[in-house]
Amino acid sequence: MSEHATASRLRLSGLCFLLQILLILLFAVLVRYSPEGSPGPCPPQLNCSRRSPDSAFQQPRIQDVHVQVLLSFGLLVAFLSRYGPGSAAISILITAFSIQWAVLIQGMLYFFLNGKIYVGARSMVSADLCTAAVLISTGAVLGRVNPVQMLLLALLEVTLCTVNEYILLTLMGVSDSGGSLTIHTFGAYFGLMVSRVLYLPHKNKRKREEQQDKGHQMDVLAVVGTIYLWIFWPSFTSTTTAHHNAENWAVLNTYFSLVASTMSTFILSPVLYEEGTPRMVQIQDATLAGLAVMGMAGEMLLTPFGALIAGFLVGLISSLGFRFFTPVLHSRLKIQDTCGVHNIHGLPGVLGALLGTLLTLLATADTFGYRLELVFPLVAQGSRTVTDQAFIQLSALPLTLLLATLGGCITGAVLKIKVLRCCPAAQCRENPGLREVAEEGSDPSAGDKELGISTLV
Amino acid sequence: MSEHATASRLRLSGLCFLLQILLILLFAVLVRYSPEGSPGPCPPQLNCSRRSPDSAFQQPRIQDVHVQVLLSFGLLVAFLSRYGPGSAAISILITAFSIQWAVLIQGMLYFFLNGKIYVGARSMVSADLCTAAVLISTGAVLGRVNPVQMLLLALLEVTLCTVNEYILLTLMGVSDSGGSLTIHTFGAYFGLMVSRVLYLPHKNKRKREEQQDKGHQMDVLAVVGTIYLWIFWPSFTSTTTAHHNAENWAVLNTYFSLVASTMSTFILSPVLYEEGTPRMVQIQDATLAGLAVMGMAGEMLLTPFGALIAGFLVGLISSLGFRFFTPVLHSRLKIQDTCGVHNIHGLPGVLGALLGTLLTLLATADTFGYRLELVFPLVAQGSRTVTDQAFIQLSALPLTLLLATLGGCITGAVLKIKVLRCCPAAQCRENPGLREVAEEGSDPSAGDKELGISTLV
Amino acid sequence: MSEHATASRLRLSGLCFLLQILLILLFAVLVRYSPEGSPGPCPPQLNCSRRSPDSAFQQPRIQDVHVQVLLSFGLLVAFLSRYGPGSAAISILITAFSIQWAVLIQGMLYFFLNGKIYVGARSMVSADLCTAAVLISTGAVLGRVNPVQMLLLALLEVTLCTVNEYILLTLMGVSDSGGSLTIHTFGAYFGLMVSRVLYLPHKNKRKREEQQDKGHQMDVLAVVGTIYLWIFWPSFTSTTTAHHNAENWAVLNTYFSLVASTMSTFILSPVLYEEGTPRMVQIQDATLAGLAVMGMAGEMLLTPFGALIAGFLVGLISSLGFRFFTPVLHSRLKIQDTCGVHNIHGLPGVLGALLGTLLTLLATADTFGYRLELVFPLVAQGSRTVTDQAFIQLSALPLTLLLATLGGCITGAVLKIKVLRCCPAAQCRENPGLREVAEEGSDPSAGDKELGISTLV
Repeated sequence: MSEHATASRLRLSGLCFLLQILLILLFAVLVRYSPEGSPGPCPPQLNCSRRSPDSAFQQPRIQDVHVQVLLSFGLLVAFLSRYGPGSAAISILITAFSIQWAVLIQGMLYFFLNGKIYVGARSMVSADLCTAAVLISTGAVLGRVNPVQMLLLALLEVTLCTVNEYILLTLMGVSDSGGSLTIHTFGAYFGLMVSRVLYLPHKNKRKREEQQDKGHQMDVLAVVGTIYLWIFWPSFTSTTTAHHNAENWAVLNTYFSLVASTMSTFILSPVLYEEGTPRMVQIQDATLAGLAVMGMAGEMLLTPFGALIAGFLVGLISSLGFRFFTPVLHSRLKIQDTCGVHNIHGLPGVLGALLGTLLTLLATADTFGYRLELVFPLVAQGSRTVTDQAFIQLSALPLTLLLATLGGCITGAVLKIKVLRCCPAAQCRENPGLREVAEEGSDPSAGDKELGISTLV
Repeated sequence: MSEHATASRLRLSGLCFLLQILLILLFAVLVRYSPEGSPGPCPPQLNCSRRSPDSAFQQPRIQDVHVQVLLSFGLLVAFLSRYGPGSAAISILITAFSIQWAVLIQGMLYFFLNGKIYVGARSMVSADLCTAAVLISTGAVLGRVNPVQMLLLALLEVTLCTVNEYILLTLMGVSDSGGSLTIHTFGAYFGLMVSRVLYLPHKNKRKREEQQDKGHQMDVLAVVGTIYLWIFWPSFTSTTTAHHNAENWAVLNTYFSLVASTMSTFILSPVLYEEGTPRMVQIQDATLAGLAVMGMAGEMLLTPFGALIAGFLVGLISSLGFRFFTPVLHSRLKIQDTCGVHNIHGLPGVLGALLGTLLTLLATADTFGYRLELVFPLVAQGSRTVTDQAFIQLSALPLTLLLATLGGCITGAVLKIKVLRCCPAAQCRENPGLREVAEEGSDPSAGDKELGISTLV
Repeated sequence: MSEHATASRLRLSGLCFLLQILLILLFAVLVRYSPEGSPGPCPPQLNCSRRSPDSAFQQPRIQDVHVQVLLSFGLLVAFLSRYGPGSAAISILITAFSIQWAVLIQGMLYFFLNGKIYVGARSMVSADLCTAAVLISTGAVLGRVNPVQMLLLALLEVTLCTVNEYILLTLMGVSDSGGSLTIHTFGAYFGLMVSRVLYLPHKNKRKREEQQDKGHQMDVLAVVGTIYLWIFWPSFTSTTTAHHNAENWAVLNTYFSLVASTMSTFILSPVLYEEGTPRMVQIQDATLAGLAVMGMAGEMLLTPFGALIAGFLVGLISSLGFRFFTPVLHSRLKIQDTCGVHNIHGLPGVLGALLGTLLTLLATADTFGYRLELVFPLVAQGSRTVTDQAFIQLSALPLTLLLATLGGCITGAVLKIKVLRCCPAAQCRENPGLREVAEEGSDPSAGDKELGISTLV
């Protein structure tokens, strides 16, 4: 065991210790439970005002908390099937840290009153949404950053993601309950930019293909992941759109989109890959894409066939993206995308935002009925026309892309700082202490010595 | 890659494309969301009238949708442990197609008004029940039909299953909330008849035994499947029997039946198989049998020990069926039953229907109290005597068996059409393109080259 | 197949048969469903009176039943990752038997009226809590007792655990809704004492280490187990503390404790084990420890940072326990602890009880508000001072430890009876019939011939 390895191990340990002590101190000074029964210190901002303030809201709270961690873990399970169980420990570390940090940062913006942050089930759900964005970003860089860098990435991304969400939802009044922009698009492009900045030419496509060919065992994980997503994700949608009856349609739209994008895989996969039926991992990717596209549009679609068409097209686009766009991304733009987050979160998120804009334009009090109040409160109150709202929805897309890429660049630059890279890449490869995760967590017979998370810059 | 393989691959792709486009068009023309808040266009049929029409029903809707896909995926997981992850992709294709198709077909019968089908959470739950029947049928023929044939099987079975359900529940007024007849019995005997018609003498028992002996990895899947069934299935029962308080007993009865049938496995397995303890796959089968027997009787049983006895006996019968009846089925009746659906769905379903008939005979306003209104609305309203109801419950059994076997014969005959079989069996075996699913999805070391879904007629 | 093996196999079969018939008879004579709608035959005991008696309680019932089996299976999944799927069949047998037996025994104490036990969703939840304690105990002795002994252990422990719970909750009025004492502490120390009594010097540490090094496949199970615990356990807490709003904080406290104890693992593991990141199984253990410590204190903690500190410390202690205390336990006290239940249930349970005592001392009507009524009904009613309550909470700890160790000793002595050991250990090793579970259930290539459940005393 070389000294380098020991130092690197202890650095992660020390960083975790410092961060956790810091979090405990900040929580001790700042965070309190919001008094129940009372309406709660909710500032007159959109995120609160959109939910019905009366006691009817009390009820879904437990349910809220129940599904709180589902989103993040859905992503986690999904990535496991692409990258193997070796990534699980780091992902859980990221989740554990990000949830705490997001409760603090989001509390500052949303639940701050008289010098204290008042947390409740709602803040946990918000924190989890933010954690989901971080996990999407890690999907782009898995295998090329070490745990210490991952923690810093989470630290920075949670902050930037919260700022982006605050600008979009609260300042601009954008309707994006399922997070097409705030989660999927932001997370994907943030991760891709970090990946671009950390680009190393000699770690090329060969490795990714090896991983994807691990075959059998990954297929079992992909089956579990797909079933998990089918069961839990649509219900998740009903959490953030917790209106009295309106959630109904968001859930159904999500299901229809899911089903159609799954069919798409079976259409394109035999054409693109010379296989009789698609692999489970491709079905899982299509499922995720079908879910991501319904993030914004889910509560705006008024007919089931709209969801079918959206899911169908996004399934085709996501499959085509994996076949034709990911190689271009890598060879031309020098962006490596370990888990293909551009195809399963980035593109579907952007398409979802465009679809949402289109649907906003078509929204009338006539077709929406009482749902207008729930989906577009500012339009229903008359303080904004439908065209204004559509323009704002549309302008939120370039803004999110800008913030995500800018934030990704900065984060990537920070992660490149010498002291964070444990050692030169050449040494790393010889260094057993740094690859333990990979070696333990993965099939020893597969000879995947180089897949480790810690095979570093 | 031979031309045959390419043709077969593209045929599946093309069929999926055509079906999905057709579905989108039909949805665009016919399907709309049912207007919320209003009582909904519910025709004066039993299936609607049994549920309380007032606003109290609005509430469980989200929960309904939450568990909507659980039933199907429970079966899916269960079959994975018998057949391996290679079957997962096809099963998910079948699920994705059947749900859409069932929404249309069932909508025609149940939710049709003024030329439009009005869908909601309820129609999704019904569609999923139908999908469950299709998945049960596929369990009997897994490994002997190709994906194109599977899709046609789903197309025909969804239609026939809906007709059977409509006749039983709406026209005859049978009480079968958990689907002992409409799901388990219909699905099992339909699949067995298809299997009979597609019988090929040279694909014999040897293969099935190989599969069952895959051992370890299948055991892990069986553990996951069993836990999944224990956790989610009893709650599923409460969805379809969404009365105010009555669901309580259905859930408890299902649990007690489950527990007792599990004990049965531990009693018979050491006697039948010379093993110290049963394998996980046997425990999972007993669990499913214990659940299937409570489909009809679950809400009629008034004492916990009744559920214990029913579960205990059905557990014993299911174990005996695997040991003694499945071989007879194969050698004498020439019916191959890949996943043993006759023992885990067919027999328990029939026994459940008989038990339900018996319990109907014993039902009095005295013992049932206000539950009579919920379980047997026609009896409670005085338009039918208990004896009449019992006779109708009983006569639903041969009717379901008749429709299932007839439908299975027709479907099997359709699937035998030359053009659907991609190629003669001899060629198939040489054809790598057709076996990719199997080879990727299953343990390469197990040498199960012949287990592929696409090793065709 | 030797005669011994056949005899041992049939003995399990016969015992299961006898027990199940006995249970059916007892259920037939004693158990009825509690009439719904009516307040139910609830004796004026604490366990009932603490829950709001009005109709508001009716609603969470289905939810109650939904999560009923979650706790047990959470533990089951957790142990699988330490011991492998070979243990699953026995664990499910134990669960199936314990639930029925606990419904009877607990019904005698809590739901007995006019010679009948009236069961409902509540009794199923209580029965499942008891089953959880039994599964914790089996975690200490897995691999060293045969199935027949396991069944007897369950028979005795359910009885003693119910008596302990009755004394604590009903007679003494201790507040322990999450079961820090009644489940975690009792189960852990009971199992450890059984392990001590059954100690065999030649089955030493070597074997345990082999098991822990199974590596890869266990890691997949640990990932699934950890995600399962994160998702379902905190919701479980809300079941037993089904007050109108108070559950909110118990859930949030559990989450914060979980998150902090996970961070602890990442701090200590690199220091203790010379690994870059902890293994998934260590993360899972920390998760369980973080959950166990919140059993009693979850509903008493009024600030989030309290939960963070508690989780942080218990995560550190649990990690240190695995490294330093388990070897001492084995070498000095001759207690083998297969799954490390002392570190993940025993110690955290004791610490949770101490924390609960401290928090009880600090409880005032001022800080608790209306929650005082819910958490400490006797204090709120004025029949007890806070100091009295704290003293009683504290004295419940040695009482539970006494009952658990005493019960464990007696049970261990019973299990040592000659007739229960199928054969001398030497013969056992030659006896193929007795090791089938192990050989089938586990990876044949791992050479773990000696890990079988039935490798007997």
